[in-house]
Amino acid sequence: MDKSNTVTCTAPVNIAVIKYWGKRDEELILPINSSLSVTLHQDQLKTTTTVATSRSFQEDRIWLNGKEEDITHPRLQSCLREIRRLARKRSNDGDPALDSTCLSHKVHICSVNNFPTAAGLASSAAGFACLVYTLARVFGVEGELSAIARQGSGSACRSMYGGFVQWIMGQKDDGKDSLAQQVEPETHWPELRVLVLVASAERKPVGSTSGMQTSVQTSCLLKHRAESVVPGRMAEMIEAVRRKDFAAFAELTMKDSNQFHATCLDTYPPIFYLNSVSQQVINLVHRYNRHYGEIRLAYTFDAGPNAVIYTLQQHVPEFVQAVEHFFPPETNRGQFIQGLPVNRVALSEELKQAVGLEPMPKGISYIISTKAGPGPRVVEDPTQHLLGSDGLPKKTV
Amino acid sequence: MDKSNTVTCTAPVNIAVIKYWGKRDEELILPINSSLSVTLHQDQLKTTTTVATSRSFQEDRIWLNGKEEDITHPRLQSCLREIRRLARKRSNDGDPALDSTCLSHKVHICSVNNFPTAAGLASSAAGFACLVYTLARVFGVEGELSAIARQGSGSACRSMYGGFVQWIMGQKDDGKDSLAQQVEPETHWPELRVLVLVASAERKPVGSTSGMQTSVQTSCLLKHRAESVVPGRMAEMIEAVRRKDFAAFAELTMKDSNQFHATCLDTYPPIFYLNSVSQQVINLVHRYNRHYGEIRLAYTFDAGPNAVIYTLQQHVPEFVQAVEHFFPPETNRGQFIQGLPVNRVALSEELKQAVGLEPMPKGISYIISTKAGPGPRVVEDPTQHLLGSDGLPKKTV
Repeated sequence: MDKSNTVTCTAPVNIAVIKYWGKRDEELILPINSSLSVTLHQDQLKTTTTVATSRSFQEDRIWLNGKEEDITHPRLQSCLREIRRLARKRSNDGDPALDSTCLSHKVHICSVNNFPTAAGLASSAAGFACLVYTLARVFGVEGELSAIARQGSGSACRSMYGGFVQWIMGQKDDGKDSLAQQVEPETHWPELRVLVLVASAERKPVGSTSGMQTSVQTSCLLKHRAESVVPGRMAEMIEAVRRKDFAAFAELTMKDSNQFHATCLDTYPPIFYLNSVSQQVINLVHRYNRHYGEIRLAYTFDAGPNAVIYTLQQHVPEFVQAVEHFFPPETNRGQFIQGLPVNRVALSEELKQAVGLEPMPKGISYIISTKAGPGPRVVEDPTQHLLGSDGLPKKTV
Repeated sequence: MDKSNTVTCTAPVNIAVIKYWGKRDEELILPINSSLSVTLHQDQLKTTTTVATSRSFQEDRIWLNGKEEDITHPRLQSCLREIRRLARKRSNDGDPALDSTCLSHKVHICSVNNFPTAAGLASSAAGFACLVYTLARVFGVEGELSAIARQGSGSACRSMYGGFVQWIMGQKDDGKDSLAQQVEPETHWPELRVLVLVASAERKPVGSTSGMQTSVQTSCLLKHRAESVVPGRMAEMIEAVRRKDFAAFAELTMKDSNQFHATCLDTYPPIFYLNSVSQQVINLVHRYNRHYGEIRLAYTFDAGPNAVIYTLQQHVPEFVQAVEHFFPPETNRGQFIQGLPVNRVALSEELKQAVGLEPMPKGISYIISTKAGPGPRVVEDPTQHLLGSDGLPKKTV
């Protein structure tokens, strides 16, 4: 197999602070409102994908986290079809930079996450962003790719950029204007920190695709949110990010997370993604902020019970200690706190009393400590390819 | 003390199916939306109040559930002041039926509930309805009293009538048109049954007065609900009640309960009244209905975790059995099911599997089985007075 036909890339997870919930077009994945997210650093959370093409491949194939999966999945097919269409278009346009031989070849795709899939972190965003980014490199497609990633998984479009990213909903029926756009790069707000609090409960929630559909069909509050609330919040959030105004950023983040879950509850039958651990984290954050008389922490929850906390670097050690106090873990500290190192500090009695919650042992499995990071990257080192020269996943995968 | 100056009455609890949440005037207790409730039968849940007047009383006094309370409570004072004002007005108008001597007397008030206050059932509605109804009898005030009860506790105005009752929000600043009105009497829908599922958890939720204030101040979804959703729902609900259309009544009841709790979650900081037991009851009801392919049950939750279930008589035994199965009690059946008798039936394996929830032992303390009932009543038997001839609570209270 020709080495030049194998490309490996990595792509990040993103966590929305203005939430995406509900599609106006299921196939093209066009949302009913714009959204905004922070791209997390790939040192802690990333997908790695290798794509190889060869005339010897009999069919398109895909392996995810070591297991071969069904390549005919409609969303996978959307991404493959779109990339090949653009490559063919460039080839037909006679672009001399393009090696069009691979256009007729089948692809092998191999993808792994460096974070536990059991964590309930939306891995599809990083996964489809990585797939589209890598396919584009293989087929020599350049330019705006977020509209293709969007067709794999809506929020994947936001993982095509680093830092602070908005997904502009767009108005067109064909979705051409429904794109992600970087608001500020990852270097813009270096003090910002992200803590992912992985809840222990493993109850499978309602999947977000079907959940969104039911919400769009039944929640009149979701319709109002999309039409009348989010446009103003997008403008406010972009302004808060630009000014690095943590209090404004944090309050709006919490309000928007709450409102998203409110629309889930207004869905019929109602959808619950927040459990008692989530409720306890919410109470902890509000009481912590109240104790200090300023907003030092913000929580946000996606379609699951895990809390994502945004805070500033200087508040990380104390808050992590508070989490350890109010959710006493069964593991040692090294296993409980993963990612960027966190110093140990003492927790004041005043703070414990001000929070005044009953500790919930083992409510949180572990914390991933991270920060904003860059968008997808090409891995130059060929030893990092996930596919061997035979076009099959390496044993180490 | 003159026996004729002592009056004892009873008044019912009511459970809203279109929820009241939020005031446009805190002092007059004027709501931001209309609401509709079912008055529960007093055989199971009632407040009994005795009011006595005597020239020998030195001051107004009140005893609630055996304990003397502060008579200067502003809402108590509102009710006392309004009743005395109307009595004075009638006296000044020269109504010959009125014995105006008691107008100058102080009152003693004694009130008890026949249901555990720990049950977290809104006792203030029954309490203020009973107070106003009894005071009106003592002072010879007749006519529309719901506007006075409303000033004691908003939902108390609905407990002034039996059966199905709407509280029309009104438009006037002075609240004169914010009144309760009977939609249908308690005899209208004899098959309708009510099961109060008392959740075991005793965590004190946010009080509804302060909760409502925060919601009105911070939730944009609540504003939308009050202005754009509730008016249509009121009309639909009245129609469903009139037609005794259980499926329509039930679906709207569940949707409105969910939406009320959604606005609590959209409040900042968010308010949680539903806990894991409540979520489990909600799941049980939806899966039960889905199993039968028709809506046989509806849940509704007020500002606490207790579920109130509306169903038809023929479905009560099986559902109660399902509750016993999915919330295995620690008490025997006699203590677990109170109120109207419920026959024991077998639960099919199909139903258990269709529901498929993990049983939550002791999640529910007990069930009160009841139905729609009449409005406030005068107790004619003088031996039932809660105040003795000395104007003090009888020892038995």
